[in-house]
Amino acid sequence: MPAPPESPSRLITLTTDFGSGSPYVAAMKGVVLAINPRANLVDITHDVPPQQIRHGALALATATGHFPPGSIHVAVVDPGVGTQRKIVYARIGTQHFIAPDNGLLDRLAAQQNPDKIITLTNPKYWLPAVSATFHGRDIMAPVAAHLSLGTDPDDLGTPQDKLVRLDWPEVRIVPGEITGSVESIDSFGNLITDIDASLLADCPHDESVRVCCDEHETYGIFQTYGDQPEMTLIALVGSSGKLELAIVNDSAKIMLGVAVGAPVTVHW
Amino acid sequence: MPAPPESPSRLITLTTDFGSGSPYVAAMKGVVLAINPRANLVDITHDVPPQQIRHGALALATATGHFPPGSIHVAVVDPGVGTQRKIVYARIGTQHFIAPDNGLLDRLAAQQNPDKIITLTNPKYWLPAVSATFHGRDIMAPVAAHLSLGTDPDDLGTPQDKLVRLDWPEVRIVPGEITGSVESIDSFGNLITDIDASLLADCPHDESVRVCCDEHETYGIFQTYGDQPEMTLIALVGSSGKLELAIVNDSAKIMLGVAVGAPVTVHW
Amino acid sequence: MPAPPESPSRLITLTTDFGSGSPYVAAMKGVVLAINPRANLVDITHDVPPQQIRHGALALATATGHFPPGSIHVAVVDPGVGTQRKIVYARIGTQHFIAPDNGLLDRLAAQQNPDKIITLTNPKYWLPAVSATFHGRDIMAPVAAHLSLGTDPDDLGTPQDKLVRLDWPEVRIVPGEITGSVESIDSFGNLITDIDASLLADCPHDESVRVCCDEHETYGIFQTYGDQPEMTLIALVGSSGKLELAIVNDSAKIMLGVAVGAPVTVHW
Repeated sequence: MPAPPESPSRLITLTTDFGSGSPYVAAMKGVVLAINPRANLVDITHDVPPQQIRHGALALATATGHFPPGSIHVAVVDPGVGTQRKIVYARIGTQHFIAPDNGLLDRLAAQQNPDKIITLTNPKYWLPAVSATFHGRDIMAPVAAHLSLGTDPDDLGTPQDKLVRLDWPEVRIVPGEITGSVESIDSFGNLITDIDASLLADCPHDESVRVCCDEHETYGIFQTYGDQPEMTLIALVGSSGKLELAIVNDSAKIMLGVAVGAPVTVHW
Repeated sequence: MPAPPESPSRLITLTTDFGSGSPYVAAMKGVVLAINPRANLVDITHDVPPQQIRHGALALATATGHFPPGSIHVAVVDPGVGTQRKIVYARIGTQHFIAPDNGLLDRLAAQQNPDKIITLTNPKYWLPAVSATFHGRDIMAPVAAHLSLGTDPDDLGTPQDKLVRLDWPEVRIVPGEITGSVESIDSFGNLITDIDASLLADCPHDESVRVCCDEHETYGIFQTYGDQPEMTLIALVGSSGKLELAIVNDSAKIMLGVAVGAPVTVHW
Repeated sequence: MPAPPESPSRLITLTTDFGSGSPYVAAMKGVVLAINPRANLVDITHDVPPQQIRHGALALATATGHFPPGSIHVAVVDPGVGTQRKIVYARIGTQHFIAPDNGLLDRLAAQQNPDKIITLTNPKYWLPAVSATFHGRDIMAPVAAHLSLGTDPDDLGTPQDKLVRLDWPEVRIVPGEITGSVESIDSFGNLITDIDASLLADCPHDESVRVCCDEHETYGIFQTYGDQPEMTLIALVGSSGKLELAIVNDSAKIMLGVAVGAPVTVHW
C-alpha cells in the first residue's frame, strides 16, 4: 500500500529583485491568494539588487533551510524573462522551489542534489493570459498556489536532468593558507566570505592566525563580536557558518571600503 | 428568498506613504488584529513618496486587481488628515476600499464605476479615541477589521455620490502619433507610460515606429527585454498593459536621466 | 478552582535592526514556522538603525500597545550578542516580550512595571545548535514559537528582578517653560519630542505659547497639520500623544536640518 500523499504546505515564500516597496510583489501575492486564500505568504527578501542572480542565490541559501519541510519557495530574479530560459520546479531536500532556471537555485543545489526537476510547460496552472515580461506573477505565483493546494509537481511539465549552474570564485587551499573572497555584505556592513568553517578545522584560532582582506589584516579567529573592543577589525565564524570580517559595533564595509569580491586570505 | 450574504473576506491589504520600516504601519496591523485576530494582512506598498496621492493611486491600480473577490484594501496617503476631507468606503467591482476621499481611488474608479460609496461617519466602528493626525490607525484600520467580520458597509455611514477626482496628464492621439508621458518608474528604472496598449492597435510594432522620450529615441515596439542587446533602449508593452521604455539589463531612469512626467511620443 | 490557562496567542511580532530586506529576518520566521506552522507573523520594523537600542525601544513603544492581549513580541537589537548580556522574557501588561536585556524594553517597562521577568536559561526551547552571533534565530525565535504553542514562561528559565535601564534625556519643567528634545523623526520628517501631552495641560494652546527647536520657533499648539498653510512650521500633539514639530506638507527634518537630540522648548 503506498504511503498517503503528504498534506501540502500552505507556506509560500517569495524572493525577488523588485524592491521592498514594490506593488509587483503584492500583485504576486494577490495571484496566490486568489487561487489559495489559505496560503501563508512570507517574504525572504525583495531587495536582491536588480538582476543579481548570485545575490538571490545566496539569500535563498541563507534563509530557506530554516523553513519547515514542504515549504514552497518562489524566487524571481529573472533578467531573461520572455526569452528561451526555462522556468523550473525543483525539489531540494524537503523543500519545493519555483524559479527561472538561471542559476538562482545553484547555491542550494550545490549543497544537496535536487530529487526532482520539472520544466514548467503546462499552462493549466498559469494565469490565462501570460505577459512577456512578468512570469513571476503570471506563471510562478499561480504554480506555487496550485502546489499549495496539492497539485502533483509531475503535472507541472516535463522532467529535466539538471539545473543551470553559476560560476563562483574558487576557494584555494594550500598548507597553511586558504584564499577566498567576500561573498556578501550584510546590513551591518559585516563581510561574509566564501570560506566555510569546515575548512578552518586545521587552522589555529589564536593570534598565530592572520586574516587579510584587501590591504587590511587582523589576528585570531573569534567567537563573537564582543570578544574584541569597539572599532576593532575582527575575524569570526558567523551565523551562516562562514568566516566573517567585522568591525566591532561599526560597518566593516564602510570603514574598510571593501566590496563583494574582495580577496580574503587566512595564513597560519 | 434573498441570497445569503457572502462570507466576509479575512484578507486586508495596506497601502501607505509611511515607509517600509514604519512602526505606524505595525500600529495599524495591531489595531486590525485586536478586532479580528483572524485577519490576513498583506502589504501592497508603504513606499508611496510622502503625500504623493497619484503614486498611491497607481500602486493600487497595479496590485489590487489581482486579489480575490471580497478583499478589503485600506489606503492611507492622507495629507488632509484632520481637515474637512472625508474618509470613504467604496466598492469597486468585487473589491472593497477604505481611503481618504482625495483621489487615491481615482485610477481604480476610472476603470470601473464604484457600485457603492459610503462616507465614514459612524464612530461605532472606530477606535474609542480618535487622534487628529492618524486616521489610518484610528478610523480606517478598525473599519476594515469590522468589514472583515461581516459588518454591512451601509452601517459605516451615509451614502455619497462620487469620489474626488484627480487631474492626470492627457494622452493626445492624432493620426500617426500618440503623445503621453512617463507615469511611473519601477524599481528596475523602467519608465512606465500612460499610453495603454489598446491605443497602439493601429500602430506598427516594427522598426517603422519611432518612440521618443525627452531627447532619446528608439525604433520598434518589442515583446520583452531580451529582444534587444544589453544596454539598448527598448520600447515594449509591459506587464501592466502600458507602453514602457527600458534599457536592457540596466536602469533607463539613471541612464536617460528621465523623471515622472517626461513626454513620450510614438510616431508612425 | 484555578482559572483555565488562557489560550496562547498565535501572533508573534518581530522588531530588528537587520534591515527590511534582510534574509536573516526570514531565517527567524522560518524557525518560528518550523516549530509552530500556525504562527501569525507580523513585522513591527526591521529598520532600527544598526545597534540603536533607543530607537528600537521607541518603535516597540509606538506599535506594540495596539496589538491584542497575549501577543508575543520578539525584539532583536543586540550589540552584545554572545557576551554576558542576558536574554529575557518579560510580561508587561497583557503582552509578552522576548529580547536581550539591554534596555530595549525600557520604554515599555517605564510605562508599566513588568509582572514577570525570566532570564532565558533553558535550552530545551532553543535550536539544538546555538551560534555565537545570532541568538535572534537560535534562541529568541524558537522560544517565541514555543510560547505560542502554550509553553509556560516559567519553564523558560529563572526569574530575575529587574530589566536593564537606559538613560534618556531629562524633560525639565519650570513654571511657564518645559524643555525636552527631539526623540525620533518619522518618515515624513516630522520631529517627535519627548514632551508628553499630559505635561501641556496647564499651557495655553493659542498664539501666546512659543515653541522653539534649535534656532527655529513657532507660535501656538495646533490639532492637525491642516490647521496651518503649507510649508509652515507647526507644533501639535501627534498621534503618539507627544508634542511634535512639523512643516505642513514637507519635511521638518530636511527643512530645519534638525536631528534626534535637538532641544525643544515650550514657553508661555
